[in-house]
Amino acid sequence: MNKTLNIQLLLTGDELMSGDILDSNSAMIAQELKNLGLDLAKKTTVGDNLDTLITEINNITLDADILVINGGLGPTIDDLTALALSKATSTELKEHPQALTQIKAWCERRNSLLNAPNLKQALLPKNCAIIPNKNGSAPGFIVSHQQCDIYCTPGVPHELQTMLQEQIIPSIANLVPNSAISETTRLQVFGLGESSLQKTIDEQLPDWPSDIEIGFRAGKPLLEVKITCRNESALEQKEVWLDKLKTVLAGHYLGTVKNSPKTLAEHTLNLLQQHNYKLTCAESCTGGLISSLLTNISGSSANFEAGYVTYSNAMKTNMLAVNPVLIEQQGAVSKEVVLEMAKGALIKSKADLAIAVSGIAGPNGGTKEKPVGTVWVAWGSIDNLQSQCFLIPLARRYFQLYVANIGLDLIRRKLMKSIETPNYVIERGVK
Amino acid sequence: MNKTLNIQLLLTGDELMSGDILDSNSAMIAQELKNLGLDLAKKTTVGDNLDTLITEINNITLDADILVINGGLGPTIDDLTALALSKATSTELKEHPQALTQIKAWCERRNSLLNAPNLKQALLPKNCAIIPNKNGSAPGFIVSHQQCDIYCTPGVPHELQTMLQEQIIPSIANLVPNSAISETTRLQVFGLGESSLQKTIDEQLPDWPSDIEIGFRAGKPLLEVKITCRNESALEQKEVWLDKLKTVLAGHYLGTVKNSPKTLAEHTLNLLQQHNYKLTCAESCTGGLISSLLTNISGSSANFEAGYVTYSNAMKTNMLAVNPVLIEQQGAVSKEVVLEMAKGALIKSKADLAIAVSGIAGPNGGTKEKPVGTVWVAWGSIDNLQSQCFLIPLARRYFQLYVANIGLDLIRRKLMKSIETPNYVIERGVK
Repeated sequence: MNKTLNIQLLLTGDELMSGDILDSNSAMIAQELKNLGLDLAKKTTVGDNLDTLITEINNITLDADILVINGGLGPTIDDLTALALSKATSTELKEHPQALTQIKAWCERRNSLLNAPNLKQALLPKNCAIIPNKNGSAPGFIVSHQQCDIYCTPGVPHELQTMLQEQIIPSIANLVPNSAISETTRLQVFGLGESSLQKTIDEQLPDWPSDIEIGFRAGKPLLEVKITCRNESALEQKEVWLDKLKTVLAGHYLGTVKNSPKTLAEHTLNLLQQHNYKLTCAESCTGGLISSLLTNISGSSANFEAGYVTYSNAMKTNMLAVNPVLIEQQGAVSKEVVLEMAKGALIKSKADLAIAVSGIAGPNGGTKEKPVGTVWVAWGSIDNLQSQCFLIPLARRYFQLYVANIGLDLIRRKLMKSIETPNYVIERGVK
Repeated sequence: MNKTLNIQLLLTGDELMSGDILDSNSAMIAQELKNLGLDLAKKTTVGDNLDTLITEINNITLDADILVINGGLGPTIDDLTALALSKATSTELKEHPQALTQIKAWCERRNSLLNAPNLKQALLPKNCAIIPNKNGSAPGFIVSHQQCDIYCTPGVPHELQTMLQEQIIPSIANLVPNSAISETTRLQVFGLGESSLQKTIDEQLPDWPSDIEIGFRAGKPLLEVKITCRNESALEQKEVWLDKLKTVLAGHYLGTVKNSPKTLAEHTLNLLQQHNYKLTCAESCTGGLISSLLTNISGSSANFEAGYVTYSNAMKTNMLAVNPVLIEQQGAVSKEVVLEMAKGALIKSKADLAIAVSGIAGPNGGTKEKPVGTVWVAWGSIDNLQSQCFLIPLARRYFQLYVANIGLDLIRRKLMKSIETPNYVIERGVK
């Protein structure tokens, strides 16, 4: 890893400052750089203001070896990148022949006439180098200032992408020694929060090597643990420590992220596919969310045929044949009722496995005995149904999402024949 | 508009620098500020590095009157905001009693034990003021440095949101003179895209006043139209032009955003509540999503009792008594079957209204006659069921979300006795 290469990003555009659009370009640039083992040191975002741009260009180039400016190359008067660079570097703006040729060709391909705003895009700091734009009218360009190489790129994502991949990244790669190392492994975890996980690692793996970096990315409901090695010695030890970490995580470890992260429903569905099992859901307080998380996934139909959203007491009886006397005596949020719901769903749908949930999502409906956040979950097969009560006093939609994922996780653990007690049962379980 | 108040943002987190997540928090903050007529001057984003954070805090506070720091308040060692501020301001870190009380209460509410990483979150720069966090463990806090007020906020979006709306924005509002004019009205629209809407306005309201600004915020699936007035003359004409716009939007207009925007399911549920009607859903390709969107809403139980997720053909017969011969002859994605599904759900649940959907979500399962994206929707009451076929060739989850919302919208329009043809039927309907 070349720690000494300071690479920064200057993003420009009023729409980025007003919150009207989210910036995805910087993520694209960061990921391309990461492939070279390079990190971004800083991102600065400012509006379309000439003085601000000049100030930032002058400040950033004091520290940075490479600055990528994104945005402000368009044809309108609020596109100021070329002008700001000409002022910052005290270089006059001049019509650039290569840029003009490219813009003319662009207009011809689109059968449109070259107009004054197009011509403005060819006015660039004198003697700059052009980065051709295959997908748009605005050429990129490179200038140097205070010993910093400045790459000016368009804000339109697909124009930027092609320029990055074909021109800019290969050019930066030439500056990086071949030995650059940066290898990250991402583990998905369910049921352990960031602080519990940190505590577990501190306690159970106290001699974790300092050069194997651990980072976290909190998600709802999955947590990602990122293990990064930046030198040879870290790389050599990595597999051993990854194995130790997975052992400590036990059933809370879902898998390693290959390309894009999987949802918990996908992990569970994959296991159902391996066993060729069908799953059904009987949902009260989650109201169809578990079914929806499963049917979200392409190819789920082979392992999911039927879901019962029995939101009222009457419908628990009507759809799942739950004994109304049981509901009367024990309440809808009870071990007895949730087990009957699971049984009813299994019998009616002929599925192999069921998840049933009944709880109080809130904010209303709680009592002293059963406060908001109380939920019974039943899961398993017709001859082996288990149940557990939890207290999960989160805001309604996080409650629903967490409960739905607990249900899916309990099925996942059953299919993996895991016998340990999940952390969420220890922390949230009600006896 | 107070142009002189320099407000800046410092975002921190390795995940923001690596491109692993997109920053949506800064958009949230910018939009809240805009409601006060305030702009952000600059956003700076850096990783979890102590020296960098200290440098940036020192630099930014030279220019800024207000600095909002977002992220780095978590319990783990890579959460460095409090430490960086203590170094930058030369103030020692101390266990803050109010912060500790809040963290303890948070752990108690979740039935979890206070651990060392949690305790770290109470170690804050001495004498800082606490911003309570209603939705998470990390308290926010306020310190002052180089005549700049620094608000430290959590990176988790819903924690930030509540803190912003209830604490930070009201506190910043006190600094803004009352005379600043910036009044924005936000209209929610379903079924019209940004370009169709712009075209409609251009054609039907050609003399729209130039000083009443129109902006759009594209959402999935609702679009928000923002009408902003920044002077007295615009304000005076506003109501007249809002009325004209609503007339043009007709049934595509859902309502005006008061505090937080409503979902389409909320608009539909509100009408069901007014009529005291019960709705049921029979879902094939949306797989429980319509039920889930409704039961997401607190108080939905009075108007939603039962949902049927009949993902397979067998379950359409088993759960909703759809004639298997009909499925055999017409296919599961057909007018006849979707009408039978709606009828079955109405009879079984005794609800007043039903939505039934059956379609091909893809990416597999399409044929030449019924390509991926084909979907039949039926809606209405037992004595007045309507149906419509659509072709919506979007990616699976956008297809599901759009179809679910069309179903909800058709019920909304029915309850409003709207007789116009919605734009989505004109654009996406299949005859």
